[in-house]
Amino acid sequence: MLGAGMNLLKDRAAIVGIGQTGFGKGLEDSEEGLALIAIKAALDDAGLKPKDVDGITSFGMEVTQQDEIARNLGMGDLGFMAQSPSGGGGGCATIGLGAMGVALGQANVVVAWRSRKRSARASRPWAGTQARVNGREMWTRPFGLIRPVDELAMVARRHMALYGTTRDHLANIALAFRAHANLNPNAVMHAKKMTRDDYFAARQISEPLCLFDCCLETDGAIAVVMTSAERAKDLRQTPAYIHAFGQGISDGSTTMSNYFGPDPLRGQSWACADMLWRHSDFKPKDVACAQVYDAFTPEIIISLEGYGFCKRGEGGPFTDNGALGPGGRFPVNTAGGSLSEAYLHGANLITEGVRQIRGTSTSQVADPKCVFVSSSDGVPTSAILLRR
Amino acid sequence: MLGAGMNLLKDRAAIVGIGQTGFGKGLEDSEEGLALIAIKAALDDAGLKPKDVDGITSFGMEVTQQDEIARNLGMGDLGFMAQSPSGGGGGCATIGLGAMGVALGQANVVVAWRSRKRSARASRPWAGTQARVNGREMWTRPFGLIRPVDELAMVARRHMALYGTTRDHLANIALAFRAHANLNPNAVMHAKKMTRDDYFAARQISEPLCLFDCCLETDGAIAVVMTSAERAKDLRQTPAYIHAFGQGISDGSTTMSNYFGPDPLRGQSWACADMLWRHSDFKPKDVACAQVYDAFTPEIIISLEGYGFCKRGEGGPFTDNGALGPGGRFPVNTAGGSLSEAYLHGANLITEGVRQIRGTSTSQVADPKCVFVSSSDGVPTSAILLRR
Repeated sequence: MLGAGMNLLKDRAAIVGIGQTGFGKGLEDSEEGLALIAIKAALDDAGLKPKDVDGITSFGMEVTQQDEIARNLGMGDLGFMAQSPSGGGGGCATIGLGAMGVALGQANVVVAWRSRKRSARASRPWAGTQARVNGREMWTRPFGLIRPVDELAMVARRHMALYGTTRDHLANIALAFRAHANLNPNAVMHAKKMTRDDYFAARQISEPLCLFDCCLETDGAIAVVMTSAERAKDLRQTPAYIHAFGQGISDGSTTMSNYFGPDPLRGQSWACADMLWRHSDFKPKDVACAQVYDAFTPEIIISLEGYGFCKRGEGGPFTDNGALGPGGRFPVNTAGGSLSEAYLHGANLITEGVRQIRGTSTSQVADPKCVFVSSSDGVPTSAILLRR
Repeated sequence: MLGAGMNLLKDRAAIVGIGQTGFGKGLEDSEEGLALIAIKAALDDAGLKPKDVDGITSFGMEVTQQDEIARNLGMGDLGFMAQSPSGGGGGCATIGLGAMGVALGQANVVVAWRSRKRSARASRPWAGTQARVNGREMWTRPFGLIRPVDELAMVARRHMALYGTTRDHLANIALAFRAHANLNPNAVMHAKKMTRDDYFAARQISEPLCLFDCCLETDGAIAVVMTSAERAKDLRQTPAYIHAFGQGISDGSTTMSNYFGPDPLRGQSWACADMLWRHSDFKPKDVACAQVYDAFTPEIIISLEGYGFCKRGEGGPFTDNGALGPGGRFPVNTAGGSLSEAYLHGANLITEGVRQIRGTSTSQVADPKCVFVSSSDGVPTSAILLRR
């Protein structure tokens, strides 16, 4: 049912600049200050100036205001703006929507960004004292489903029960991403090695998920610059062409608690995959490495299944034998991901996808023709394919 | 600087369904309930079913969640989602972004909606007791610029000082829209006539703006269904083709308080107009009637100038001799607008634009080849041109 006959997005836009702040806890700058630093760095990377920008995309959850960013960075008139819905699901959509603006001629140069200070209460709506709970959460909060990790734990437990997935599989994921992070000097966990014993010794956060199944809490900002394929050729960086863009809300799903539906393990990735691959010249087997949203380790298993990198139920064993780690069969989150590089709602997965295409990753795969990047499976989501 | 060489959006998508709830104060349904009623009505109007929908767009400010709307209405997998930034500026952008999805083949059928209960505190961030004010507002709040109307009053006063605009011009606008509303049975002010004496007898809200310079406070929801031009031909309603789409953040502007910049009367409409007309086969003189965002009467004058319907500074006299009213030279807000039909962040301006194209307005202009619709000039904005 999804998608019209012809798709006009393919390879018409490219990522030509990436930028970021340092990542860490308790950074001094405001979200806006961090955003400005990251955007300026991305424009410098592309060899473009603020006045070249005429379009901007950001997360709907972003606390920075688009017009404030534009004015404070000295952009001129802007003619295209969009926001992506749903927090962690919206990362790739900021890129896809920007690419759409470029592909259609609604903009020449689009900047996308994400800036967060996780220490700020507004970024963690479940933290602290709460007002009376309304909506569907009033049926679950009293029974202990407070945080996203509690909801993902339910999904993980079901996957274990149905398919025999184990904590060892989850450990495979955490260890693989940590190993990538150990190669990446910008990763928050760069200097911290982790063993399987460390993983199993960590405290439980929400059974069966322990500390190392959960993403970091990070302040920081990341920005991406896009322009047309034609213009990209004249700029200084190897373009990462946006080959395909998908988004997805799966039939009957609910944010972070899909277990109320008829098929709890069919995440949002399934709907998104349908749109993504429909318009792609590549298939899952053509993907050299993947940057997969990992607020929690079970999301990796669900996403690998949803996007067709393995069969349903086989996501656990797929991670065996160091498959996802450096030099593995199918490297995933090669900068360390949300678990070990930084948690910026997945914006760092996008920039790492670009570095793989450029050949500048600290955990580089050989000659990647196609790199896959996804956003959170647990909420209305998005994904992109990047190519040389 | 704006816009690439070729634009691929033109006339590729059409509005094929519109729907709304009743408009009023203190409606019983929740925002979500209202949204579902409006969307179902719009799909019925188009002769489509929830399962036909594969894309959704909404305001970033919308309190309803896209996945909750999809599930509760019984849509299937969705593959395209976007949000428009900046409240009252984002109305036409929900249509434009949806049209982009259709034009590019990222979606077949897209629904856009806006649902509001103005009685809910969350919809009026300036109302009630406030936390400590941060950001640029800390420089203005202590001096009495509390509400949007206070900020618009500054703009209005400057227009009066520079160009000789008068309260009689503002009255022209309020009276014209009320006269349109008196013809529209769905308008909140349908039964209430207004004279020039009534206007001048009304209490001041923020000088020089009186009660009738301000929009209504309305609960209600509105929805719009879009699909491809090809498919639109087979559906039951006269298609309203989305001919052009513009968005705008003007160089150096600030939300609702552009008077801090070098050119306080160059609103966001100027940047938006540049993009809109650049890709249009029509010029301002070809527009049969306009639906112009009117949270406050001065926005009409600024917008008419910004989009080129009159010269800069001539927006006041442009309203003379009943020009904007029923049977006038240039009818504006032919269902009554935000001042006299309903205030739903301008979503009702879009549906009225569609009715004009269909020939079903209660204040119908003769044979309109092109209808203009805009969103708020005071914030990052958007506009569309609809054609037969």
